[in-house]
Amino acid sequence: MIKVGVVGYGTIGKRVADAVMLQKDMELVGITGRSYSWRMIAAKEKKIPIYALGDDEELRKNGIKIAGKFEDLLGKVDIIVDGSPKKIGIENRDKYYKPRKLKAIFEGGEKASSVDASFVAQCNYDECIGKDYIRVVSCNTTGLSRTLNVINKLYGLKEVYATMIRRGADPWDIRHGPINAIVPVLELPSHHGPDVRTVLHDVEIFTTALSVSQTLMHVHTITAECKKTPNVDEVVKAFDAATRIRVVANDSLIRSTAEIMEFAKDIGKLRGDMPEICVWKEGIGVHNNKLLYIQAVHQESDVVCENIDAIRAAMGFKDGKKSIAMTNAALGIK
Amino acid sequence: MIKVGVVGYGTIGKRVADAVMLQKDMELVGITGRSYSWRMIAAKEKKIPIYALGDDEELRKNGIKIAGKFEDLLGKVDIIVDGSPKKIGIENRDKYYKPRKLKAIFEGGEKASSVDASFVAQCNYDECIGKDYIRVVSCNTTGLSRTLNVINKLYGLKEVYATMIRRGADPWDIRHGPINAIVPVLELPSHHGPDVRTVLHDVEIFTTALSVSQTLMHVHTITAECKKTPNVDEVVKAFDAATRIRVVANDSLIRSTAEIMEFAKDIGKLRGDMPEICVWKEGIGVHNNKLLYIQAVHQESDVVCENIDAIRAAMGFKDGKKSIAMTNAALGIK
Repeated sequence: MIKVGVVGYGTIGKRVADAVMLQKDMELVGITGRSYSWRMIAAKEKKIPIYALGDDEELRKNGIKIAGKFEDLLGKVDIIVDGSPKKIGIENRDKYYKPRKLKAIFEGGEKASSVDASFVAQCNYDECIGKDYIRVVSCNTTGLSRTLNVINKLYGLKEVYATMIRRGADPWDIRHGPINAIVPVLELPSHHGPDVRTVLHDVEIFTTALSVSQTLMHVHTITAECKKTPNVDEVVKAFDAATRIRVVANDSLIRSTAEIMEFAKDIGKLRGDMPEICVWKEGIGVHNNKLLYIQAVHQESDVVCENIDAIRAAMGFKDGKKSIAMTNAALGIK
Repeated sequence: MIKVGVVGYGTIGKRVADAVMLQKDMELVGITGRSYSWRMIAAKEKKIPIYALGDDEELRKNGIKIAGKFEDLLGKVDIIVDGSPKKIGIENRDKYYKPRKLKAIFEGGEKASSVDASFVAQCNYDECIGKDYIRVVSCNTTGLSRTLNVINKLYGLKEVYATMIRRGADPWDIRHGPINAIVPVLELPSHHGPDVRTVLHDVEIFTTALSVSQTLMHVHTITAECKKTPNVDEVVKAFDAATRIRVVANDSLIRSTAEIMEFAKDIGKLRGDMPEICVWKEGIGVHNNKLLYIQAVHQESDVVCENIDAIRAAMGFKDGKKSIAMTNAALGIK
């Protein structure tokens, strides 16, 4: 049994905690709580032990039972998944995890240069086996890496250009915008391109990004120049056969990110998550030696299964394919 | 004096009517009205003669004075600008304009194959001189054509890939969505690529498109493979020197389509329109022999000046550059 602690119970942390509880080879020792919110009520209802980050008076006052202090949690686990806001994860490592020789998984907000390796299970599991500090790349980088890895194996990638149309905020987030604007990222390339190379080291990729006024998924349009001439049917088959990628179709009236999210709820996914990267069948095209495709990325959930596999890789579990299969079975992922 | 009639007083028609009134060599004979709405009140306040399309009872009942029937308008003009919904323009031509040997300008909703020529003034004015039926291409095609024409002249275009992030609906439009989704166009290429070739005949271009939940402008991300290696400063200078293109900058806090629209109001443009294609300075980059840039297109207004130039071209005015200068001066366009 791998004893796991989750630090930071936000968008990713709370999902990783649930996913850990569903693994046969893992035990969720506890999570951390700092301030009172609906998240703490949910954790309490799920009977997850809550360890206090800082003063616990506000939590206790609101009826949240505290299992101990943050430091107590660290003494009981084999590994930490740190879903803190960016930069805090690496600060925690230097202050708390390193002195205790405790392994940890970080999220995509941390810098690649701060960790031992960046991670997307189906791309570079082997590279991360036994590493102490692994970074699961961001939702967008994960989405790009999963599908580009398939194309790279099939045809060889010469050069990739991608535009990321990003959701403005998560559905629960009432503080961010835009309400009515398109906001380009005014740095070229956007950070996503270089980030893909931390996982797929030999892929030449250049990215642009924008934020838009909606909350349901990111969408990527990708132009992948291949070494061999691509074929649409072959690509559909390869995506279909790959793990954690789902081919969706206009035929079944999945015409937008809204319909993907509704479909995820209809098939009973927890929280209505869609961890698979969804590629539109009718959005795949070939022009000269270039493959074009359009994919949707559920920003809140696609990296959750990656965190589970990263835990196994860090703990020295050697078989990446087996880890992916175990994670998928436990979480109901294609 | 060129006597102009405007058929269809919607998003484009009403703007073209205003623009015609501002030209020294043109006279707005009248517009058409079908049903009662705020648009008719505005036309009445501007003292524009209104000719009835069909039964005029509803208009009269609501205090809108009618100058005559649609057919009466046709007898008084040299040329029609037809801003009817798509397909209706060409139906009008066959039924009304052709029998009267009346020239007409159509909008981008009509098929290129239905007209004598497609039009973007700074790209192919000469080709359209004296033509009876000219089609001003859509707002997106106009935006692509204007900037690609500059790059084509500067470096030669080898191949272009562009993604169009389109506004979901116009600001006044309460019937269309999406409220919360990204909706890809599930045909590859989207129609914009082939449409650019009706104006810039030799440009190899492939486009993808999506609709998003906002109303302020379209945004394009463009990857233009050039025959010579592009240079960012050179491109900024060339866009700056070109007509109907505006370089905007993050430096001046123009970070989004919302700020462009506010800026347009602040500089006193009628209706807050931004007819120039806005290219973000910080969004221009070079990777190998490829130029990348991000531009915003004001869907309601960029084609209005094109309609004015198209009128002159159709009427046989030979000097395209002079026409553009006249139109720009009258409309306050860069």
